[in-house]
Amino acid sequence: MSDDAVFARVMDSFARQGLMKTLRATLDHASPGRVVIGLPFSQAITQQHGFGHAGAITSIVDSACGYAALTLMPEGKAVLTSEFKINLLAPAAGERFEAEGRVIRAGKRQHVAMGEAFAIQNGARKSIAVMLATLVVIDGEGGLSN
Amino acid sequence: MSDDAVFARVMDSFARQGLMKTLRATLDHASPGRVVIGLPFSQAITQQHGFGHAGAITSIVDSACGYAALTLMPEGKAVLTSEFKINLLAPAAGERFEAEGRVIRAGKRQHVAMGEAFAIQNGARKSIAVMLATLVVIDGEGGLSN
Amino acid sequence: MSDDAVFARVMDSFARQGLMKTLRATLDHASPGRVVIGLPFSQAITQQHGFGHAGAITSIVDSACGYAALTLMPEGKAVLTSEFKINLLAPAAGERFEAEGRVIRAGKRQHVAMGEAFAIQNGARKSIAVMLATLVVIDGEGGLSN
Amino acid sequence: MSDDAVFARVMDSFARQGLMKTLRATLDHASPGRVVIGLPFSQAITQQHGFGHAGAITSIVDSACGYAALTLMPEGKAVLTSEFKINLLAPAAGERFEAEGRVIRAGKRQHVAMGEAFAIQNGARKSIAVMLATLVVIDGEGGLSN
Repeated sequence: MSDDAVFARVMDSFARQGLMKTLRATLDHASPGRVVIGLPFSQAITQQHGFGHAGAITSIVDSACGYAALTLMPEGKAVLTSEFKINLLAPAAGERFEAEGRVIRAGKRQHVAMGEAFAIQNGARKSIAVMLATLVVIDGEGGLSN
Repeated sequence: MSDDAVFARVMDSFARQGLMKTLRATLDHASPGRVVIGLPFSQAITQQHGFGHAGAITSIVDSACGYAALTLMPEGKAVLTSEFKINLLAPAAGERFEAEGRVIRAGKRQHVAMGEAFAIQNGARKSIAVMLATLVVIDGEGGLSN
Repeated sequence: MSDDAVFARVMDSFARQGLMKTLRATLDHASPGRVVIGLPFSQAITQQHGFGHAGAITSIVDSACGYAALTLMPEGKAVLTSEFKINLLAPAAGERFEAEGRVIRAGKRQHVAMGEAFAIQNGARKSIAVMLATLVVIDGEGGLSN
Repeated sequence: MSDDAVFARVMDSFARQGLMKTLRATLDHASPGRVVIGLPFSQAITQQHGFGHAGAITSIVDSACGYAALTLMPEGKAVLTSEFKINLLAPAAGERFEAEGRVIRAGKRQHVAMGEAFAIQNGARKSIAVMLATLVVIDGEGGLSN
């Protein structure tokens, strides 16, 4: 698949995620094994101290990891997040956040992805979270795909 | 602290979380060491197959675990999520979801909480996710509290 | 399968784990979905402060979770540990340790297990660690089984 | 501290870990923020299929992460493993294994480390596991240090 086709495939699915729309997240990049999702800061995603909520940051890193795995799936197969773990390294303070997901092991039954989140503030880009995620490969049964 | 005071303390913080408002989550219960958060299903929280997004479910379980830890903190001290891991056990299919956080170890430097998410569908309540979370105890420095 | 047959199946595999022999771990219980492994304290398993090493404790909890999953597998199928996360709740101080693994979700592609470790000291039994583990179901290919 | 002093400090602690001796693990490298531990394959560390046991691999990655954190601690302070998560990417098949721990975030209360394990077989070096670990900083109270 060309990079354009990969991006189109991921975008087709991303556009159907109500949560990404609600958070105002954007699909910024998708190539084989790597996806980047952006998220502007807004009051809609805050925790009690005014920073970005861990749940919002986690949502975009989870989606980035899942879609990174999807880029490596043959048509008709899909992935579901089985589990992930995230370490929050610093408060989510910034005008904008970015989540990057990269597949580090593509297997027959499951893929493992590493995710990272960044806060962009005054032009500086700081790592604020790291994730390890396990995605299970499914056969498109139950109507599930992409 | 009375249970009412514990609930009031958590509610004061919960009401300042923009993300909980955005997701339409509700604080349903707070007592020492245990917090329950509810989340109605809506298009605003879906993933691409129409189920609840793992990120939305994770957000309420994370908040429930963090607030369960907060209920055990003396006034003036606060907690921050250091990290968590979540296993997604089943698709988030339901009219409503509930997240429960319980502290399983309260320490001087950190608390460990166990979280669980449930989907309520046609009157049945099904476990859809389990979380282990580490919360770090902070001294209210930097203006952070509750 | 009878409980005796379940125990025999797990023991057959356990006896082939060189590491369990090296650590002097014992298979104490195996029934459908639940396995308990014991470990006596010795200098052979210490960390630098003289407590049980997190790695030794983790080894028996991991084995207990894996075998708990194996008890639910049809003959000819096997399980492999895909990943786990462990929270160490207290130093491993005791004359003896016990690890319990319980399957909390048995699926077609993978099982999820919860593990817990206990230290036994002067007759008291204290929880020292909790684990969430993902076990992947394999079809006995590559000669792998049990 | 010079690299030699860093290595000496870690070695002093490593030599007191009974488990590392039992597994025949060796301290191969220690510099600020980075530690490598080696482990020869032997029957003493196997699981039931004859590969290296996940528990043995985890033990050296956990130690490598903990010691990587220790290299950044002032004298008199110590670290304890709070929790970790490991993804097993491939069977531990090799003549020898190596675990590398690197601190990715050094904080006042805790450090976060990333670990990786490799299998060396016929001259090839393959990544077999990745870890994210949280280490808590302690003040040497209770006689705990290094």
